[in-house]
Amino acid sequence: MAIRYPNGKKYTPATANAVAKPASLSFSNRGKTLEDELNDSNEYYTSRGIAVIHKKPVPIQIVNVRYPARSAAVITEAYFKTASTTDYNGVWQGKYVDFEAKETKNKTSFPLQNIHDHQVDHMSQVHEQGGIAFLIIRFSLLDRYFVLPFKKFIEKWTRMIDGGRKSITLAEVEEMSVEIQPGYQPRLDYLQALTGIVEQTTGERIERQES
Amino acid sequence: MAIRYPNGKKYTPATANAVAKPASLSFSNRGKTLEDELNDSNEYYTSRGIAVIHKKPVPIQIVNVRYPARSAAVITEAYFKTASTTDYNGVWQGKYVDFEAKETKNKTSFPLQNIHDHQVDHMSQVHEQGGIAFLIIRFSLLDRYFVLPFKKFIEKWTRMIDGGRKSITLAEVEEMSVEIQPGYQPRLDYLQALTGIVEQTTGERIERQES
Repeated sequence: MAIRYPNGKKYTPATANAVAKPASLSFSNRGKTLEDELNDSNEYYTSRGIAVIHKKPVPIQIVNVRYPARSAAVITEAYFKTASTTDYNGVWQGKYVDFEAKETKNKTSFPLQNIHDHQVDHMSQVHEQGGIAFLIIRFSLLDRYFVLPFKKFIEKWTRMIDGGRKSITLAEVEEMSVEIQPGYQPRLDYLQALTGIVEQTTGERIERQES
Repeated sequence: MAIRYPNGKKYTPATANAVAKPASLSFSNRGKTLEDELNDSNEYYTSRGIAVIHKKPVPIQIVNVRYPARSAAVITEAYFKTASTTDYNGVWQGKYVDFEAKETKNKTSFPLQNIHDHQVDHMSQVHEQGGIAFLIIRFSLLDRYFVLPFKKFIEKWTRMIDGGRKSITLAEVEEMSVEIQPGYQPRLDYLQALTGIVEQTTGERIERQES
């Protein structure tokens, strides 16, 4: 049975993130979650010296821990906490990168209920600090991936706050985002997509550095 | 009884981090851990728009979860994992900041066993990417705090790898670091200490921005 957060969001065990998968396995997407694909891509980036980006551990509220003699501490009661920040952050050629990754089975729009207020606050604070904040959205059933800059996302979020629709239509996502074509290595080259966005907004030219 | 990581490091429940303490309580250090002091300081930085820096959740390996009807999922078996990165990271005026915070009861030196290989690897990768990597070291019994840049730290780490001493003497820490004078708001103004270090290494002038 699917494990869910208090907010109903499906939970993927930390073990899945912890297991290091060779990038060579990344091409097939059979049964892979967006998180798996991003972890593979981040491993590739790190191994090539392109960027250092990690997923944060799932925030847990620990209530009880048993400490058996001569063995590791066992957490016997704990609960999932809703994250106060986004799931991924790191450094890319000196730049601070911060994003949330979401999948939807919806074929026509991205429901904004997938994002929490405090995550929007966090991305807004990051943006204010000159960090690069964005969302990666996967339309699972369409097998399409988009990099949506925070500056664009917040327009539609504000529209909802102002009483407008509670989702972003696929057409709007297509228009506001850079689409990622899933590849081999890395599986999801979202930094490549980001290059265009950053150059567009800052006018700064970014040379791809690999080692 | 104190809960400890597999490596023997004392564990402070996530609850302690989660609870938002008004900065006005930060001045007294009675029973406060370095983590509490840093969380208070980071809250202050965020509230003033100076920086957005957070502690990462404690990495947990979840083995069993119960999912009672009509109530939140309960984790019934889980274990602490050793972190693959440092504990704190974030963005400061567009710059990526990444650090590990450690306390020692030792009065004369900082034992390097407090740091894991993979954390050193991570800080090294961050440094390569143009991020600002450093350590914050507290000598608890001396009530002294130091900001130690990674570039300096790695010299002594390498000395150990090459068969040298397994610690950094207090004198060496004093010589290589910028000392923080604990204050009121923020409790530990480590970004102020960092300003000098960054300007020194990059020649870049940093204006403190507050909102």
